Amino acid sequence: MIITLKSDTTQKGIDQVVQKIKELGFTPHISKGAERTIIGVIGENAIRYRNVFEAMFIVESIVPISKPYKLVSREFKKENTKVKIGKVEIGGKAIVVMAGPCAVESRDLLLEVAQQVKEAGAKILRGGAFKPRTSPYSFQGLGKEGLKLLAEVSRITDLPVVTEVMDPRQVEMVSEYVHIIQIGARNMQNFDLLREVGRGSRPVLLKRGIASTIKEFLMSAEYVLSGGNYDLILCERGIRTFEDATRFTLDLSAVPLIKKLSHLPVVVDPSHGTGMRDLVAPMSRAAIAAGSDGLIVEVHPRPEEALSDGLQSVIPQDFHRFMKEIKSIARVLGRGS
Amino acid sequence: MIITLKSDTTQKGIDQVVQKIKELGFTPHISKGAERTIIGVIGENAIRYRNVFEAMFIVESIVPISKPYKLVSREFKKENTKVKIGKVEIGGKAIVVMAGPCAVESRDLLLEVAQQVKEAGAKILRGGAFKPRTSPYSFQGLGKEGLKLLAEVSRITDLPVVTEVMDPRQVEMVSEYVHIIQIGARNMQNFDLLREVGRGSRPVLLKRGIASTIKEFLMSAEYVLSGGNYDLILCERGIRTFEDATRFTLDLSAVPLIKKLSHLPVVVDPSHGTGMRDLVAPMSRAAIAAGSDGLIVEVHPRPEEALSDGLQSVIPQDFHRFMKEIKSIARVLGRGS
Amino acid sequence: MIITLKSDTTQKGIDQVVQKIKELGFTPHISKGAERTIIGVIGENAIRYRNVFEAMFIVESIVPISKPYKLVSREFKKENTKVKIGKVEIGGKAIVVMAGPCAVESRDLLLEVAQQVKEAGAKILRGGAFKPRTSPYSFQGLGKEGLKLLAEVSRITDLPVVTEVMDPRQVEMVSEYVHIIQIGARNMQNFDLLREVGRGSRPVLLKRGIASTIKEFLMSAEYVLSGGNYDLILCERGIRTFEDATRFTLDLSAVPLIKKLSHLPVVVDPSHGTGMRDLVAPMSRAAIAAGSDGLIVEVHPRPEEALSDGLQSVIPQDFHRFMKEIKSIARVLGRGS
Amino acid sequence: MIITLKSDTTQKGIDQVVQKIKELGFTPHISKGAERTIIGVIGENAIRYRNVFEAMFIVESIVPISKPYKLVSREFKKENTKVKIGKVEIGGKAIVVMAGPCAVESRDLLLEVAQQVKEAGAKILRGGAFKPRTSPYSFQGLGKEGLKLLAEVSRITDLPVVTEVMDPRQVEMVSEYVHIIQIGARNMQNFDLLREVGRGSRPVLLKRGIASTIKEFLMSAEYVLSGGNYDLILCERGIRTFEDATRFTLDLSAVPLIKKLSHLPVVVDPSHGTGMRDLVAPMSRAAIAAGSDGLIVEVHPRPEEALSDGLQSVIPQDFHRFMKEIKSIARVLGRGS
Repeated sequence: MIITLKSDTTQKGIDQVVQKIKELGFTPHISKGAERTIIGVIGENAIRYRNVFEAMFIVESIVPISKPYKLVSREFKKENTKVKIGKVEIGGKAIVVMAGPCAVESRDLLLEVAQQVKEAGAKILRGGAFKPRTSPYSFQGLGKEGLKLLAEVSRITDLPVVTEVMDPRQVEMVSEYVHIIQIGARNMQNFDLLREVGRGSRPVLLKRGIASTIKEFLMSAEYVLSGGNYDLILCERGIRTFEDATRFTLDLSAVPLIKKLSHLPVVVDPSHGTGMRDLVAPMSRAAIAAGSDGLIVEVHPRPEEALSDGLQSVIPQDFHRFMKEIKSIARVLGRGS
Repeated sequence: MIITLKSDTTQKGIDQVVQKIKELGFTPHISKGAERTIIGVIGENAIRYRNVFEAMFIVESIVPISKPYKLVSREFKKENTKVKIGKVEIGGKAIVVMAGPCAVESRDLLLEVAQQVKEAGAKILRGGAFKPRTSPYSFQGLGKEGLKLLAEVSRITDLPVVTEVMDPRQVEMVSEYVHIIQIGARNMQNFDLLREVGRGSRPVLLKRGIASTIKEFLMSAEYVLSGGNYDLILCERGIRTFEDATRFTLDLSAVPLIKKLSHLPVVVDPSHGTGMRDLVAPMSRAAIAAGSDGLIVEVHPRPEEALSDGLQSVIPQDFHRFMKEIKSIARVLGRGS
Repeated sequence: MIITLKSDTTQKGIDQVVQKIKELGFTPHISKGAERTIIGVIGENAIRYRNVFEAMFIVESIVPISKPYKLVSREFKKENTKVKIGKVEIGGKAIVVMAGPCAVESRDLLLEVAQQVKEAGAKILRGGAFKPRTSPYSFQGLGKEGLKLLAEVSRITDLPVVTEVMDPRQVEMVSEYVHIIQIGARNMQNFDLLREVGRGSRPVLLKRGIASTIKEFLMSAEYVLSGGNYDLILCERGIRTFEDATRFTLDLSAVPLIKKLSHLPVVVDPSHGTGMRDLVAPMSRAAIAAGSDGLIVEVHPRPEEALSDGLQSVIPQDFHRFMKEIKSIARVLGRGS
Repeated sequence: MIITLKSDTTQKGIDQVVQKIKELGFTPHISKGAERTIIGVIGENAIRYRNVFEAMFIVESIVPISKPYKLVSREFKKENTKVKIGKVEIGGKAIVVMAGPCAVESRDLLLEVAQQVKEAGAKILRGGAFKPRTSPYSFQGLGKEGLKLLAEVSRITDLPVVTEVMDPRQVEMVSEYVHIIQIGARNMQNFDLLREVGRGSRPVLLKRGIASTIKEFLMSAEYVLSGGNYDLILCERGIRTFEDATRFTLDLSAVPLIKKLSHLPVVVDPSHGTGMRDLVAPMSRAAIAAGSDGLIVEVHPRPEEALSDGLQSVIPQDFHRFMKEIKSIARVLGRGS
């Protein structure tokens, strides 16, 4: 249930509504806009108490929400959410590209790639310290050592950093080293992890699960927002289908569809979404053309030596080239970069 | 097996090779380029006779083809195939948009839409006379009457026409009225129908089956080419996945991937591929950005009255608007429209 | 809309209702039961004329049908349909096994297999004369020659024969040689072919398309019944999913679910459904345990020499063995074999 | 790489091989059979040191393993693994049925269901204390309170208990209350959780992820075994496909296929696998007929009041009935219950 208050409601009025919501056993979520204040009432069957609030003279309207997600919905918040990381803003006018190696392998390599992607126009550095690997015998990432390297290279290059967390016990520690916490596709429904980052203060990049519907994706986002963390970026990264010519099927329709349903920013990962280096450039262009707020791309100077996902990493020269095309397409849509 | 002949081979030399291929029980497919002639040898295990041809002094090289498709492959033909329909060329520098109502419903409506889409920049008129419907009780199309209307409106507007054929017994008749024969997704593996249009003289628009891999899609194209008809346009129109927020999952990765594997032109159908009007414009932009040679779009002035697929038809005004964006994106990629 | 007539209605009364239905532009489908007569009224929005029929004193009740299929539904006909082919009855108490080679390859092989599967308890011989092949260069079946061999071996062994038809132009010819017409998975939505066998007199075995929902499957069955042919057997044969360890994913839940929704008999094809010889026996047992009315199994004495689908054919000795297990499981469920 | 030692090898000989493996930086996994000892050498590219071990006279044979999983494979261990929980043995001759409510809701209800399923022949009690819910606003389980109820009802009824864990921080605590730790489908690739239960001492029931191939499923099992915990039971519970008539598509082919590839026991969850009460009985019969070692079934006396998954719970009377059919089918396959 969403309560819209009249435009001249005072703070005291807001407090009264909030207190009533709490008394009834529900959780209030307050969103103050330029003109008026909207309060989401979270809890099952809250709509049964509709008349309690309708009776309050400061209430303008009440909208029951049948969608299973609330805080993430466009009904709850009409304007696009802009997630700010230092000087970078995701979800605003400019498209934002995050780039870097799949896994952090060494300081030199990380620094080399970071400088190259920065020069090409990337605004955020990506790199994995903890790697989710299908096999227990594959390289699992450098762990804390990798986090330290990310933090160091971030300082040198002045690029904010995004990295993946898999274990709720590591959220706090990782948050000390990086600027954006990534939840990977395999953990999209790891609800304890979602609650943990929901309680945290770092912006979250949530990847869509490979078998998740868009509705389930938004429900997982709801876990984070309902924990109090509103700085969430959604990421389409391909779904699992019968087609085996590509590693996954990148579902670009998800971009304009999520934009309709939710106020949250959406970015696309063409590297994991296709699993093929040659498709990264065309699908990056397509993602931006479909309305994506940005990209997250794997770049590696020597893909054949990469410890993880070499097949889908592009080399810096190619990255440089398609960044130009992307900027031109962004301009066609009235967006900078 | 593909035989490349030396650049100075005479017609007599070509004839000798062709005769040898036939003697051995195989089928020759000759492709004369500007510089040299290439001959595909079709038939199982043709490669066993490699040495027979290697011994001929006019043969430059022999390439065994392990891919199950041959005539449609880039190995067989390096240059892009351009399918010509009157003054229109699909697969060339310019992108080509086909547009029109899902089903032909009446002369007036068809003419109205045809004039509107032409004005917006569409080069080909689409419209169904025979409609494949899941239910035997749904509107099945106007049949021959619809074909006549298509032909008439084509004459008035000077737009070539594409329409679907479902029954091999109707290929000849339909070919008299329209310029491009469409094979729908449900019939992508209707092999008797593929053979029938392969023997025909009309260009063919082959839609990908909803559960077809790209490899199977190209194999079905191979049926048409191996019948002697090389004027084939491939069309990505969405595959069936678990995601039910959209009608199908439009697999845009298929566009750059097919471009790598095959010389045939590729277009995209964002209307059936998403099943949602609001997604047609963004996915059309994305398709062009991914490298598609064109689009096939459903346009209807009053979608709520459409006898078929109203939900996914865009209105002429919106079509006009996104045609402009598409042209701008095409220019970014160095293509006209 | 389904009209149930009072139990003492005369033929004259039935004729009156039928005539009224026709006058209104709908198609009547009459089903005379032991006790009372039911008339299906086919056509869009027939329910609008409900009051016309309610006013007739011989009408007991009228049920609007919201399901998109009508004639195939349990609402339309409560009792199981039993399809009779000579002495064999599919859909009755006994389970029925159809077996034979994938493709008809030679008279001797066909006769050898037919005698072996008959001895093991199979009641119907299967074998393909026209083979739908992904590649235009693969063995396409013996065609009419294969039909003649099937007819001859049928006479010798006294086993009825089921074979696939792909082209509507061949339905009549094939019907002269065999007892059951099979529509393959690729043609489940080849509506012209469905209409053709719907007009025919031979029982039809309709296979589920690899990307077809159960609802679509029943809609295709509706095409056949609405053409006047009520002798239809449905066949689950695996759907396409992301799992690639098996050729398809055999959806056995479809068996009890279809039994709930429809009165038509259901059989299972464990050979195509798994694509692996070792899985044919366990999945055959599972199919019968799930309530299937029968099986259609590929048997070949020398699978490694088979011209088609050798990997999934079982050898006669193994077939003999699992037929015994199947009979025991059938008995547990109160069914013979 | 798997090293098989000669049958008369002493403990000292075994120790020498083990030490050598460790020296080379690999991890040894020792499996002592009745006749001979087998040692798995875990680590990437261990096979490069093949000659080191071939030179040892106590080594009988060395088998390189190309499959990405090792400890779970049939090559590593030929005999079926039998997981013992008190007097119950899963993977042995008898089939084992686990049953109970989806979520633990109250002591009385849990005790009522436990006594009913025990009477019907169930050997293990299931019930969720921590529930993974798509929505943050749905009932999330009783938590620790639920664990205490499970432990109490287990003591009263003498039924061992299985329950789900989602958070690695709770593995130790949950292990104090229950006999089998369940890893749910959503956490099949929660690698930190897998490692945690791999280090634990409780048998593990690992459910297949809804988008996981069988290969990935076995890889996740490998995480647990490589942690030292060999008591693992695999559970097929349905995969996500395009079919929406059932909640998931129960992939029964997985049962005989996993039995071929692995020595681990396999059970089936027909409740989540179909999501429909009416399909639980037929799919339970089918699972046993396909070779499953057991079932895990949701039973609730008043499904309409269940706080979770009421639609798919069967009532005790129906459970009683189909347990009889299951026992009969098990006997056909030479198995008790």
